Amino acid sequence: MVKTDILIIGAGPTGLFAVFEAGLLKLKCHILDALPQAGGQLSELYPKKPIYDIPGFPEVLAGDLVDNLMEQIKQFEPGFTLGERAETIAKQEDGSFIVTSNKGKKFHASVVAIAGGLGSFEPRKPLIEDIEFYEDKGIKYFIKNPEKFRDKRVVIAGGGDSALDWSIFLSNVASEVTLIHRRNEFRGALDSVEKVQELKDLGKIRMITPAEVIGLNGAEHLESIDIEENGAHRNIPTDYFIPLFGLTPKLGPIGDWGLDIEKNAIKVNNALDYQTNIPGIFAIGDVNTYPGKLKLILCGFHEATLMCQAAYQIINPGKRYVLKYTTVSGVDGFDGTRKEAPKAVVKAIV
Amino acid sequence: MVKTDILIIGAGPTGLFAVFEAGLLKLKCHILDALPQAGGQLSELYPKKPIYDIPGFPEVLAGDLVDNLMEQIKQFEPGFTLGERAETIAKQEDGSFIVTSNKGKKFHASVVAIAGGLGSFEPRKPLIEDIEFYEDKGIKYFIKNPEKFRDKRVVIAGGGDSALDWSIFLSNVASEVTLIHRRNEFRGALDSVEKVQELKDLGKIRMITPAEVIGLNGAEHLESIDIEENGAHRNIPTDYFIPLFGLTPKLGPIGDWGLDIEKNAIKVNNALDYQTNIPGIFAIGDVNTYPGKLKLILCGFHEATLMCQAAYQIINPGKRYVLKYTTVSGVDGFDGTRKEAPKAVVKAIV
Repeated sequence: MVKTDILIIGAGPTGLFAVFEAGLLKLKCHILDALPQAGGQLSELYPKKPIYDIPGFPEVLAGDLVDNLMEQIKQFEPGFTLGERAETIAKQEDGSFIVTSNKGKKFHASVVAIAGGLGSFEPRKPLIEDIEFYEDKGIKYFIKNPEKFRDKRVVIAGGGDSALDWSIFLSNVASEVTLIHRRNEFRGALDSVEKVQELKDLGKIRMITPAEVIGLNGAEHLESIDIEENGAHRNIPTDYFIPLFGLTPKLGPIGDWGLDIEKNAIKVNNALDYQTNIPGIFAIGDVNTYPGKLKLILCGFHEATLMCQAAYQIINPGKRYVLKYTTVSGVDGFDGTRKEAPKAVVKAIV
Repeated sequence: MVKTDILIIGAGPTGLFAVFEAGLLKLKCHILDALPQAGGQLSELYPKKPIYDIPGFPEVLAGDLVDNLMEQIKQFEPGFTLGERAETIAKQEDGSFIVTSNKGKKFHASVVAIAGGLGSFEPRKPLIEDIEFYEDKGIKYFIKNPEKFRDKRVVIAGGGDSALDWSIFLSNVASEVTLIHRRNEFRGALDSVEKVQELKDLGKIRMITPAEVIGLNGAEHLESIDIEENGAHRNIPTDYFIPLFGLTPKLGPIGDWGLDIEKNAIKVNNALDYQTNIPGIFAIGDVNTYPGKLKLILCGFHEATLMCQAAYQIINPGKRYVLKYTTVSGVDGFDGTRKEAPKAVVKAIV
């Protein structure tokens, strides 16, 4: 069982920044996220895209913003459990919570902060018979560790950036990469499309277009797929099939936790602290709603900050917290580091 | 008369970022600030100090944050009136406002956003007889244009960073720089103290310590000052006397505008838009108060953003605004520039 002060559900920018503000209040955080890496949508959907409305950044790539936030919080040593989804929550007699993931991992926290963005991202699965049976037996919707595919035969399906970029990447790892798409046209960054064209011409990526995967075969593990190409059926032997048809956000099991939900978002009391109808559970960032709500990253930062003050009061009842400015008081990391402005000296001039 | 959509009072980080969010909504802004340069406290009090709690910046110098914000908003061409203080406000029949500065300049705006920080910074004035008479006749509390002092005799008083840094700077501009302080000890950055020591040893700065200025002389303009040094009185001829004893923030004339004030801060309705008790006047950043208020720059950014949405509704009654993401829709500057993410292409691979 993981024990922590604040369990943050969601590793997007709002959840990450909450670690920093909690750290200033000496509160420890653990982050749980269904995606295989930190950063939420920024890492998963548009890491290479510029964002223009983060205060102080005339332009910042989404992936770089995530890197900066990870750097900013590392001194507070957050725990991470990635690739697991929050499934159930049980309030304890002392007011704390035990959250259990879809893989059975348990987290005990005084405060739960849901920073779930638009929900947990679920892959769009193609409608192929028996596809569930082959999940974890040759079907992958995410690529967490590319080394898994070393010297294996891989079929990727899809027509967007993910399909293009992973085909390029795995062409240097897998023994054989096949890219299947139902059209000849791909939609993505120009240099990705051109790179795939080049690798195809070099024989390093096999392209089958327009085509669709219609069947999966194998006793214990995926052994081959059936495809339809120009009305004809073909069988292609492969070790892995990776359909990359995008992600859809779903509020998921959190929707059954007894929280007030409005249009797929969690209602919060914004006047004070972004707390939900269940005391001790907060919702911050895109996942919450209140009058005047804007789904902007910079608003999530503010909400995370106010949430931490309320969490402090729950965890340290009756203790008064006096706001200290980092410029004046510096930052003491849990890892023993200290950041502070160069001190002024008092020195005679003689 | 300056005409604009939103008159922003205060050029600190919150006021500056409001220009960006207003610009996304096609609203024009004009900024009025009593200090001689943009950036508020960040520029005036601690430009060289690091801030650690701006989201996405593990560390940023206050002055650099101001520079970044100025760069981020320049495409929306804000107007600036610096070195003037908002004095009076008059609501017009159509609901708009005319604000008049202490120098008589008038600003006509549909919406007024007070982003006044801790108030307008007023210099701490030494208690010397007739000092008001010599203001603008040889007494300066701020240095706006150092060239004014070229080849002039200057006396600076004070024992902190401002006194040290301006003594250093003016030692290359003025014909004679005298630094007076009531102690031998100075409090400031180590390298500033050491640099003054060096310039003193070179004869480029004359130090008189411990000493105090006790009198001012001159018919039309300051001609000399009287000082007390070790119980003895001396007269020192000079063209300028610059007492740098720090600044105290004062809410100032805004306190008389009929706004609800609580502990030197302006009460706002935070549930929606940070509007004050006077419709059309908003208060954002450190100057406002509401339950749960934290005086943090990142909170000011959020407040500025929500304020702009409400301003949009006032300026465009009945018009529905659909939030667009800068990553998706780009940013169209008023100066004709356009920023946008590189477009995806749709391209066949053959």
